[in-house]
Amino acid sequence: MKIWQKNIDVDALVETFTVGNDRVLDMQLAAADVLGSLAHTKMLNSIGLLDREDLDAVQQELKLIYREILDGRFIIEDTVEDVHSQIEMLLTQRIGEAGKKIHAGRSRNDQVLVDLKLYFRSEIQRLVSLIEGLFRQLIRLSEANKQVLLPGYTHLQIAMPSSFGLWFGAYAESLVDDLELLKSAWKVCNKNPLGSAAGYGASFPLDRTMTTTLLGFDDLNYNVVYAQMGRGKTERILAQGMSAVAATLAKFAMDVCLYINQNFGFISFPAHLTTGSSIMPHKKNPDVFELVRARCNKIQALPNEIALMTTNLPSGYHRDLQLLKENLFPAFQSLAECLEITTFMLDYIIVKENILDDPKYDYLFSVEVVNNEVLKGVPFREAYRNIGEAIENGTFQPQREVHHTHEGSIGNLCNDQIERMFEDVKAAFHFERVETALAELLS
Amino acid sequence: MKIWQKNIDVDALVETFTVGNDRVLDMQLAAADVLGSLAHTKMLNSIGLLDREDLDAVQQELKLIYREILDGRFIIEDTVEDVHSQIEMLLTQRIGEAGKKIHAGRSRNDQVLVDLKLYFRSEIQRLVSLIEGLFRQLIRLSEANKQVLLPGYTHLQIAMPSSFGLWFGAYAESLVDDLELLKSAWKVCNKNPLGSAAGYGASFPLDRTMTTTLLGFDDLNYNVVYAQMGRGKTERILAQGMSAVAATLAKFAMDVCLYINQNFGFISFPAHLTTGSSIMPHKKNPDVFELVRARCNKIQALPNEIALMTTNLPSGYHRDLQLLKENLFPAFQSLAECLEITTFMLDYIIVKENILDDPKYDYLFSVEVVNNEVLKGVPFREAYRNIGEAIENGTFQPQREVHHTHEGSIGNLCNDQIERMFEDVKAAFHFERVETALAELLS
Amino acid sequence: MKIWQKNIDVDALVETFTVGNDRVLDMQLAAADVLGSLAHTKMLNSIGLLDREDLDAVQQELKLIYREILDGRFIIEDTVEDVHSQIEMLLTQRIGEAGKKIHAGRSRNDQVLVDLKLYFRSEIQRLVSLIEGLFRQLIRLSEANKQVLLPGYTHLQIAMPSSFGLWFGAYAESLVDDLELLKSAWKVCNKNPLGSAAGYGASFPLDRTMTTTLLGFDDLNYNVVYAQMGRGKTERILAQGMSAVAATLAKFAMDVCLYINQNFGFISFPAHLTTGSSIMPHKKNPDVFELVRARCNKIQALPNEIALMTTNLPSGYHRDLQLLKENLFPAFQSLAECLEITTFMLDYIIVKENILDDPKYDYLFSVEVVNNEVLKGVPFREAYRNIGEAIENGTFQPQREVHHTHEGSIGNLCNDQIERMFEDVKAAFHFERVETALAELLS
Amino acid sequence: MKIWQKNIDVDALVETFTVGNDRVLDMQLAAADVLGSLAHTKMLNSIGLLDREDLDAVQQELKLIYREILDGRFIIEDTVEDVHSQIEMLLTQRIGEAGKKIHAGRSRNDQVLVDLKLYFRSEIQRLVSLIEGLFRQLIRLSEANKQVLLPGYTHLQIAMPSSFGLWFGAYAESLVDDLELLKSAWKVCNKNPLGSAAGYGASFPLDRTMTTTLLGFDDLNYNVVYAQMGRGKTERILAQGMSAVAATLAKFAMDVCLYINQNFGFISFPAHLTTGSSIMPHKKNPDVFELVRARCNKIQALPNEIALMTTNLPSGYHRDLQLLKENLFPAFQSLAECLEITTFMLDYIIVKENILDDPKYDYLFSVEVVNNEVLKGVPFREAYRNIGEAIENGTFQPQREVHHTHEGSIGNLCNDQIERMFEDVKAAFHFERVETALAELLS
Repeated sequence: MKIWQKNIDVDALVETFTVGNDRVLDMQLAAADVLGSLAHTKMLNSIGLLDREDLDAVQQELKLIYREILDGRFIIEDTVEDVHSQIEMLLTQRIGEAGKKIHAGRSRNDQVLVDLKLYFRSEIQRLVSLIEGLFRQLIRLSEANKQVLLPGYTHLQIAMPSSFGLWFGAYAESLVDDLELLKSAWKVCNKNPLGSAAGYGASFPLDRTMTTTLLGFDDLNYNVVYAQMGRGKTERILAQGMSAVAATLAKFAMDVCLYINQNFGFISFPAHLTTGSSIMPHKKNPDVFELVRARCNKIQALPNEIALMTTNLPSGYHRDLQLLKENLFPAFQSLAECLEITTFMLDYIIVKENILDDPKYDYLFSVEVVNNEVLKGVPFREAYRNIGEAIENGTFQPQREVHHTHEGSIGNLCNDQIERMFEDVKAAFHFERVETALAELLS
Repeated sequence: MKIWQKNIDVDALVETFTVGNDRVLDMQLAAADVLGSLAHTKMLNSIGLLDREDLDAVQQELKLIYREILDGRFIIEDTVEDVHSQIEMLLTQRIGEAGKKIHAGRSRNDQVLVDLKLYFRSEIQRLVSLIEGLFRQLIRLSEANKQVLLPGYTHLQIAMPSSFGLWFGAYAESLVDDLELLKSAWKVCNKNPLGSAAGYGASFPLDRTMTTTLLGFDDLNYNVVYAQMGRGKTERILAQGMSAVAATLAKFAMDVCLYINQNFGFISFPAHLTTGSSIMPHKKNPDVFELVRARCNKIQALPNEIALMTTNLPSGYHRDLQLLKENLFPAFQSLAECLEITTFMLDYIIVKENILDDPKYDYLFSVEVVNNEVLKGVPFREAYRNIGEAIENGTFQPQREVHHTHEGSIGNLCNDQIERMFEDVKAAFHFERVETALAELLS
Repeated sequence: MKIWQKNIDVDALVETFTVGNDRVLDMQLAAADVLGSLAHTKMLNSIGLLDREDLDAVQQELKLIYREILDGRFIIEDTVEDVHSQIEMLLTQRIGEAGKKIHAGRSRNDQVLVDLKLYFRSEIQRLVSLIEGLFRQLIRLSEANKQVLLPGYTHLQIAMPSSFGLWFGAYAESLVDDLELLKSAWKVCNKNPLGSAAGYGASFPLDRTMTTTLLGFDDLNYNVVYAQMGRGKTERILAQGMSAVAATLAKFAMDVCLYINQNFGFISFPAHLTTGSSIMPHKKNPDVFELVRARCNKIQALPNEIALMTTNLPSGYHRDLQLLKENLFPAFQSLAECLEITTFMLDYIIVKENILDDPKYDYLFSVEVVNNEVLKGVPFREAYRNIGEAIENGTFQPQREVHHTHEGSIGNLCNDQIERMFEDVKAAFHFERVETALAELLS
Repeated sequence: MKIWQKNIDVDALVETFTVGNDRVLDMQLAAADVLGSLAHTKMLNSIGLLDREDLDAVQQELKLIYREILDGRFIIEDTVEDVHSQIEMLLTQRIGEAGKKIHAGRSRNDQVLVDLKLYFRSEIQRLVSLIEGLFRQLIRLSEANKQVLLPGYTHLQIAMPSSFGLWFGAYAESLVDDLELLKSAWKVCNKNPLGSAAGYGASFPLDRTMTTTLLGFDDLNYNVVYAQMGRGKTERILAQGMSAVAATLAKFAMDVCLYINQNFGFISFPAHLTTGSSIMPHKKNPDVFELVRARCNKIQALPNEIALMTTNLPSGYHRDLQLLKENLFPAFQSLAECLEITTFMLDYIIVKENILDDPKYDYLFSVEVVNNEVLKGVPFREAYRNIGEAIENGTFQPQREVHHTHEGSIGNLCNDQIERMFEDVKAAFHFERVETALAELLS
């Protein structure tokens, strides 16, 4: 079934090529598609394009379909082109002619646009929740291990004392800034494109403000040409938001792989969470973190892929945009799994104590000694030269106690401030507004 | 002069290779470096590490150097490694020993970090101002040309009526969403890393909250390991923000190059703003827009370049980060110029009237006719089939009047709403807070 | 079943996460895995590590499994980790203990390496065959349409006369250079990594030259550390080779989408090969070419994705490499389909005659007129100025005949030379050598 | 001076914007531009478009200009648009009207095309020579250190014994495969585009085969539309070739930074080749290798940048292509410097002996022990399980002698084979053919 069928059969090869994986990927849009139609039909009724009786039939049946989708009982049949056609067909089978009326004032273009935005919103909300889980885990570990010192490296050379409190806390704070990026993606997603039709508007007296309210959007994509232009752009911005989180996870995973290496040996995991090797029976490989790193680096490549696929396309819809789903949709799941498994693995992380007792780390304390001289009144450059000479002469004596007290230092992690920042950014999403609107729409 | 010199000469080849273009690029950080030192030394005085007399000498001289920088009288000498060393050397030459004391409690690492953040803030503010100029230009043109119709394309096939009002307005609205991205970059930039030293804090009782206030930062990068981790990450996020604006400009430039092509012929520019060709005397080439497109696509490649240069580096400083300046710093200037020249060129754009009188555009109105049937009560799928058949039979009659009235459509552009959104996003930067703080610091 | 099992159960979540899509993707390596084992076991026998009887049993059964794979009767069971384990398990079930001996002297690492190289070789060969099909199609169309003129554009401005002969021929010649890139990928693939074990060699007296010959490789990856380092690198180089072909296809598809647009109107396709639209009944959308363009741009993003996932990993195997299959393997199929459908669509392309009769193309001939003056002895710059003035005065008279005779011009396409180049590059792959070796191995 | 000037002044802002950095970048094309004109004018004479007297004057003066370029006495004046105009202007100033005749039968388009290809050829040749230098250095170090063992890692976990012989040799062999990529770039560059004019040929009876021979090209870009299409494509392919070399260098640099780290401590460099830190007097930072890594990762980003700037541009010249020079030209110099300094630094590398005596590396030998059991007749899976249990029980006894004898293993590095492969690939460039042709042209 193809809704624009006109007595000419499109060649089968062409059809197979053009439909591609759409049936599979569209399954993820099914719930959003129903939400869009619930709002659109209410609006059609309000402007006199759908009578009350038809509206009631449509609303009731759409809510049943919504339930089927959540329950996993919804499928897109092989003979049906996409999710929109499947839902319209089901509706028409079940309630007759009224089912055909829900498309009035819409194009498949703005139908997909609104589906994507609704779907992206729900995925962002899921990610934020998982990010919060990892954030809390990192703060907990930072507090629990704030006394445990670690060498700090610059140029990958041992440099100054650090601590597990700092290390875990740094990645927690990193997630705060990442959340800013996700929030800007959220803001771009949270505007209503419905009513833009094929990107040039419609001659129906649509009430776009009404659908905006019904669907819990913050605002409209006003200009209809811009609403369409949001396709591809929204995906790219969202991919950038995800790539910020991914970059933090990948860097953390790199640290883990390094610190679990036997030459560092700063952390370990129980054997049942690492993997072995077919010919090296003693190995405890950090496969989970290698795969978190790889998956997250792959997500980091996504914004560029989207840019390459959309750059230099003039304004107006192009079929190219359909393909953006292919790597973007699985990326949500992949990033969610990376967040989950990292949080899970950190339940089991074993931190090594007394690392700095090893004499190879003595020089870590050279800066402390310089600074103590300065605090006693020796000019910095002179203190610096003195210690340098002591080290060269082999007369340097480390002072192993670390007295760092300023904001964000070993002795004063400010995790409460970091938590406060996290909560501020999270609050600015106003997820509750969306939840209220959708609950109302589905009630 | 190298401030960490220790009687061993670093081989000249190594030095040339490692310094690279830093002296040239660092010139752009000079003003920021002075601001950082003004704040740092006030704070050193407040914690008893710099006496009042030295502080006064340092503050007075730094303000003179700041003035020299603004006046273009500051240079980095060939024998000096970087901007920080140059300023410290000048200071010491002019006010003696006090000049050497300003480095206490700092590392070059957090000095560069704070310089970069201050510099990025000023560049973001400049870009926002230029974006606003282009935004106002586009809104003006949208309003002025709202009656002038244009074919709208989907799949690059003529589809539905559009208008210059819609076209210009779409790009104005696009800039609103782009501003969201720049705002998240601004938020990430507008946190104070000073006091993180080499990424592991210091044993001095630094008052980081004080420097945060003095420099007009919103908040701190609390965790010192995270403050260092911001290097590379901040650059990538900023490049993503710029790439959002660049993507909008590149797309607009592509449209211009297409619409100025003789087969479209929708717009033109005066001859003195286009260029000719050595063997095709009749050509009016849109070189400016081709170069805007190319420069902006290049900026779109920047976040990926930064990702490739920073991915899989474990935590802690690496010298790799120095190289990020090379393509990022010129990108500010390039994007600024693209914004300026596009705004300038649009002063001269000539829009063609009556484009749709050409019969090849008759079918543009088919959707209007379908919709009018629907408004008269014909079911959509039936009206759709009827018009399709009329077109195939050659009996289709276009109705050339367009009555689109809903929000964001040809007859109701909602440019006032788009302007309201722009102003809301812009206000959220709170540039005035930064301006007030810096004016105070320099007073 | 996990071949390195050691009485400790790996947590189910970890296992699910780490196995990922491997079972699905590994299906494509099954045939290659059998080939590798056929060669490896012959070699084991030759060095006394597998007796004749076991060898015969193994060889016979592996050939049966190979047949099952080709016939689509092979599956990887849910309880089995990967293709290698599945084949080893089948073998052991069917022939007993001998099945367990085939892993001697190998690691999963070099087993995967050789599987990938064998698989890549077969995919490259398939692509070259499809490229040849498209190449022949383009040459045929170039010859068939060499008299049909077309406007040539520079800066997307009408510039000089071109022809369909030139246009089709250009893309044919583009494929010749692309083949050079695929050939370098082939050369990198066509070296034997087997015997490198986990990347550090083995204490067995393996005869790597023997397996090189048996598998039809050109040469060895000698250094075992380098053999392992080829993982990721080979994939990136191969992706670059594919991206060369993809770039040519994407550009051609862009041209098609432009030329089929009604403002250009240079070409068309029968209605059954284009698609319609839900509300614009007159449209004939070039979806196939839009999707070819999008798929090929996605393939162009692949080398960068691989670079991002492998950059800054120190030498030695990392689990990250497993994930490279995910976008690379489907890219083979996607590119193959793009080549096939483009070749197929070109069977139906309809080229418009007499395009240049439209007066808007008159200026195309200005350069001809300049050149004719020059051939009569007028200095170039003077002739150029004269024609420029004639055009400005409206007195310019085009001469519509095009006499281009030099190599590669409208009147002298040199398609035979282009075909000669294609055949030269193709011959240099020496596919026949591989075919002969594999036929022997399977006989 | 602008050679297409037509009495209308192009606005100064537009001119500044469009010329950009071209004068600076074009300096690198000056020598190539002269070579192109030497060949083109000889050909013009042969087809009767330039008389003998003018030819002699032109040839003589062009050779003088060539000498001025090599001697650094050539500049592009501020009032002149590009290198082509500068050379033509000099020529006309010095020999009068004859200087104006050299442009006949050419467009600036094919003039730039041939300049780029000639310039790229010389840069490729320079790179190959530097690659050979590094290759020889690595082979030398591999041979010199073949007895010195090193831990081999997989998953960054200690795995099996490796050696410095293997480590250095692996990177040498990596360069062999990289050379294949550069060779395919060379082949794409080494075809003559001259005579394609603005991408649509010319009505002059040009003898393109003659200029092909004179300039030492292997073959022609026959189809003139394809010759133009090579712009952007050639740059991308060349960038891919460079990125192959860059990837090898970056990986090597990552290894060096890891091995010089105090937790590994496998290698070191004299203090004068490392750098210190402002507050950590004991550090020996490997800045050179960090910057080699960063520069090379930046080069790895280049093919993607070029793809983003050229994708979805329809066929025919676009001004966008001018900008490709900006990051590509400096990349030649940057990669050359990375090759040079790596070769230089390796003169001083200090390799640590007896690393494996440290008991933490005992388990490295577990695979050896498994294999020795197998060689004694124990089935692999059984031997594997036995050793695994011995390790768990603490009864494992390492055998510290490594007897690897197969091709490419610790005891049989096959460096002579690797050298043979290098020489084979290098010979296939046939640099001597180009050198002979250019010497003849300049004689």
